[in-house]
Amino acid sequence: MLFKFLPKEVNFFDLFEKQAGYAVDAARYFKEVVSQGVIDESSLENMHEIEHQGDEIAHVIHAQLNKTFITPFDREDIHALAKELDDVTDMIYTILNRLKVYRIVKADKNLIEFASVIEESVNSVTCAVKGLKNTKNTKSVAEACIEINRLENVGDAMRDKMLGELFDKEKDPIAIIKWKEIYQDAETVLDICEDVAHIVSNILVKQA
Amino acid sequence: MLFKFLPKEVNFFDLFEKQAGYAVDAARYFKEVVSQGVIDESSLENMHEIEHQGDEIAHVIHAQLNKTFITPFDREDIHALAKELDDVTDMIYTILNRLKVYRIVKADKNLIEFASVIEESVNSVTCAVKGLKNTKNTKSVAEACIEINRLENVGDAMRDKMLGELFDKEKDPIAIIKWKEIYQDAETVLDICEDVAHIVSNILVKQA
Amino acid sequence: MLFKFLPKEVNFFDLFEKQAGYAVDAARYFKEVVSQGVIDESSLENMHEIEHQGDEIAHVIHAQLNKTFITPFDREDIHALAKELDDVTDMIYTILNRLKVYRIVKADKNLIEFASVIEESVNSVTCAVKGLKNTKNTKSVAEACIEINRLENVGDAMRDKMLGELFDKEKDPIAIIKWKEIYQDAETVLDICEDVAHIVSNILVKQA
Repeated sequence: MLFKFLPKEVNFFDLFEKQAGYAVDAARYFKEVVSQGVIDESSLENMHEIEHQGDEIAHVIHAQLNKTFITPFDREDIHALAKELDDVTDMIYTILNRLKVYRIVKADKNLIEFASVIEESVNSVTCAVKGLKNTKNTKSVAEACIEINRLENVGDAMRDKMLGELFDKEKDPIAIIKWKEIYQDAETVLDICEDVAHIVSNILVKQA
Repeated sequence: MLFKFLPKEVNFFDLFEKQAGYAVDAARYFKEVVSQGVIDESSLENMHEIEHQGDEIAHVIHAQLNKTFITPFDREDIHALAKELDDVTDMIYTILNRLKVYRIVKADKNLIEFASVIEESVNSVTCAVKGLKNTKNTKSVAEACIEINRLENVGDAMRDKMLGELFDKEKDPIAIIKWKEIYQDAETVLDICEDVAHIVSNILVKQA
Repeated sequence: MLFKFLPKEVNFFDLFEKQAGYAVDAARYFKEVVSQGVIDESSLENMHEIEHQGDEIAHVIHAQLNKTFITPFDREDIHALAKELDDVTDMIYTILNRLKVYRIVKADKNLIEFASVIEESVNSVTCAVKGLKNTKNTKSVAEACIEINRLENVGDAMRDKMLGELFDKEKDPIAIIKWKEIYQDAETVLDICEDVAHIVSNILVKQA
């Protein structure tokens, strides 16, 4: 394995693992907040702190990439992986922020359902990213990627069902405007997780 | 021409032609469904089957790309072309799915009009992609790209006119929410076709 | 500096400076139009002319890039910079066009406020892009990038405040549909400026 000879101070694997950790923090905290049913200023501040830490680590990865000549896998894949992992955390923060801006102080059961699927998917993302460290993990990484893809399909069906019911039952157009966007945002988190899975799969294939 | 010496089993041109064929199938079927005016579960299933076949071929192209050392044109252009062609078919499927989710069982005359322009543009996309196979086709490929750009401008004007009339005449905000997004989606198909044309034009320039 | 030896006829720096100039024209004219409070056909035509000139120069840059072997910085960065600068001008045009399509003939005080911040950000973009010409400017380029990032944060807060107030006070769902999208578009201009700043920062780091 090429990356055995990388100098210790530029361990992209550790950085990615840390970055995935912030996505897990965000997903877990998001589920906690929407499950408790009360979205307030302090929960948004906590989430913002997680998002900010994720930003910092993404910045470190990009900066290291610019300074490093030999990388454990293709530069463009490192760049893309850091970007997409950052987007996962950002998108979860965006949903909580939108709830606040739209003056929604209580999540509905649909959003709680989405929060669980998002947490599952982000956990699989962490599995996939952690596994990149060692080619012995190829099988478990591939399985995590398959699971992420499966959860994206689950999310698509959930969003369609929720939107269909929203247009069936909700008569207040302003409520439709709000919840339509929030369900679509929730599904977008799963899309971004799928993008991570694509990048990871690609890295696996190139290493094979 | 470099690509004369490519081994037969990795013919990217054939794969792209097949992929463009699914976009044509999607565009043709979309026009048929909206023209007949009835959008039901079975039409969505048929479209989903086309979209799925398009996904498969995109997957084959990306997998072949990872295994192939010498490619007929830049790897990044192959990657981008496969992605955008896939997006054309996906977006057409998305519109039909959205009609179902929004409980719209009958297309309006605007959407039928858009379906025709989409079919024209996707036909030109196929022309452009097929022509890449042989540098003798440079002129016809360039003409197809110009036509795709022209149709994108036509689509922009159509969407603006339709949205303007929607805000002028429609008093039901929920209907505005639905149709606004559907006209915007329809125009997005033409934007993606234009992205294909850009990639193809780029490949032409590099080969010149 | 490598780029000292570039042939005169392919001066990417001059082309980027010209392209940034069109973004400044668009931002300045946008502020003028929304401040005067009357959005009519002729103002849209003037803006379209600016956007068209921006398109032309982007086309020239991409064409030159395909013909040029030695470039002053990474090809992918040149490509990305031309694309994002084009997107700035496009997005400003899109907002004015949307106002017309949504039959809004008078900007509100929020949009005027956004127009000022957009102008400030685009001015900093021009500073950053102009400064790339000479490594002596590293400090001023870095400062311009920091300012662009700061203005993006300002814009985020403005948009959230405006959307919150819109959902608080506006009872007409159709007005919400319109203004919600326009405020989001306005903030998107600042996002694109931030993308430019990222690309420019990246170029700086690689040159260091």
